[in-house]
Amino acid sequence: MVRIVEVGPRDGLQNEKPPLSTDSKAEFVARLSDAGLREIEVTSFVSPKWVPQLGDADRLWPMLPAGPEYSALVPNTTGLQRAVALGVKRIAVFTAASDAFTLKNINMTVSDSLAAFAEVVSAFRGLVTDGWVRGYVSTAFECPYAGPVDPGTTSQVVAHLIALGVDEVSLGDTIGVATPPEVRRLASVLDVPYSRIAWHFHDTRGTALANVQAALDLGYRAFDSSAGGLGGCPYAPGAGGNLATDDLAYLLEREGEVTGIDRLKLAEASLPVLEALGRPPSSKAQLALLACR
Amino acid sequence: MVRIVEVGPRDGLQNEKPPLSTDSKAEFVARLSDAGLREIEVTSFVSPKWVPQLGDADRLWPMLPAGPEYSALVPNTTGLQRAVALGVKRIAVFTAASDAFTLKNINMTVSDSLAAFAEVVSAFRGLVTDGWVRGYVSTAFECPYAGPVDPGTTSQVVAHLIALGVDEVSLGDTIGVATPPEVRRLASVLDVPYSRIAWHFHDTRGTALANVQAALDLGYRAFDSSAGGLGGCPYAPGAGGNLATDDLAYLLEREGEVTGIDRLKLAEASLPVLEALGRPPSSKAQLALLACR
Repeated sequence: MVRIVEVGPRDGLQNEKPPLSTDSKAEFVARLSDAGLREIEVTSFVSPKWVPQLGDADRLWPMLPAGPEYSALVPNTTGLQRAVALGVKRIAVFTAASDAFTLKNINMTVSDSLAAFAEVVSAFRGLVTDGWVRGYVSTAFECPYAGPVDPGTTSQVVAHLIALGVDEVSLGDTIGVATPPEVRRLASVLDVPYSRIAWHFHDTRGTALANVQAALDLGYRAFDSSAGGLGGCPYAPGAGGNLATDDLAYLLEREGEVTGIDRLKLAEASLPVLEALGRPPSSKAQLALLACR
Repeated sequence: MVRIVEVGPRDGLQNEKPPLSTDSKAEFVARLSDAGLREIEVTSFVSPKWVPQLGDADRLWPMLPAGPEYSALVPNTTGLQRAVALGVKRIAVFTAASDAFTLKNINMTVSDSLAAFAEVVSAFRGLVTDGWVRGYVSTAFECPYAGPVDPGTTSQVVAHLIALGVDEVSLGDTIGVATPPEVRRLASVLDVPYSRIAWHFHDTRGTALANVQAALDLGYRAFDSSAGGLGGCPYAPGAGGNLATDDLAYLLEREGEVTGIDRLKLAEASLPVLEALGRPPSSKAQLALLACR
């Protein structure tokens, strides 16, 4: 079985300026759940000052329909307290394989962020005995500020996250530049079980599905994606950002994987959000499916 | 070296309704040449009644700038005479792996089309001793009317084309449904040298680059594509049709292949045509490149 981790409500929205109402977000998540998605990262317990779009995490969480496993990004112990108070059992922490990137985004070196997460993860384990933690490693292939990242560097961050008790590491091609040979190169130096790795590809240059296939061929079975390709490049209408869940689900189903996803419901789930944000869909599978209704 | 066969001016335009002037087409080809494309299929010597958009083949051909190798589709001996009179040295014939498809498109069974092409190819060889012939096999994976195509059936059509003297066979995923395991399955039953095969993927559901990678990994070295993804689905703005040359060139260059293509010039080459046709670009690599100018 291949796991799809839907990150549209969090990663797909976090950089979007037009404010989306909490009701719209809850409706979006409900439609994703109805479409058959079983793992959904819904928000971030970050300070509303940093990410205004996700500032309603405390109001949104209690509105989520039962069914899927929900997770939320937790940047620090303050966020952790908010999350745990709401009963959040699956959290994600966020670092990168490039100091230039973490310094710009979370004002810490990678090493400092790992030290901070050790504290967060340890506190979480103490509070939630049946909890689950994911660690994101952004810029796993290349950093927009520092250029190509050595696979060995990424592998060390992965090992560090696993060592501090993270259940799963999600490797992000944050700027969407990687190609399959790079996926194979990075995979060849990872020193953790396949089951602890998820791949988080961005489709900025159309290579995300090719990278998914490369990882599938190696035996990996967990991928992040965003309904309707939400989280696209803010500068170019129609340009790609996150790999669209619609494209991923098409590929997997066509290859005989049972995803449990109703692809038409999925294609329709993101439309109201895309419209509210003034974005055209960037998923080709979604466009093809909707054009043939 | 990987060969890119640019098919935008022919395959990308043939189904487009808004008439494009011959001057615009010549300008488009000139810009593709300037961007570094070395093989370009520029038009079809089909009856203007069938494909009005390409009805100006006889006027267009003499306007092409020197440099690239140009080719043209030739449906029958009448078209062949027109082409040869203009000095065309590279022709393409067009069949499919599904009778339902050829009957609908060229009003012949696959077998009848192969018999007709034997005549065209033989006449061409007699007239042009240093000529080159490509045979297209559409619906190599699936037919929009008859469903999935058995790889053995496609392989037989390929063998038949090679036997009647075609230099290269281009295998088309006409409706853009295939995924990498299907590429591997088809490749595994082909009984011709790799150097005689080109792959013609459509990106209707976002899988084209993944399929390119699968073919590259097997050792294939020739791919068709269309600048700016021209030839998209007529029913959905932004939806994909032909694999975009921009996406293909990005993937290849990132993997260390030297394509000789100036990707910015390429990205700009298709913009006037897309605009004249009222279509947004569907290539993610193109959009990403243009957004960062």
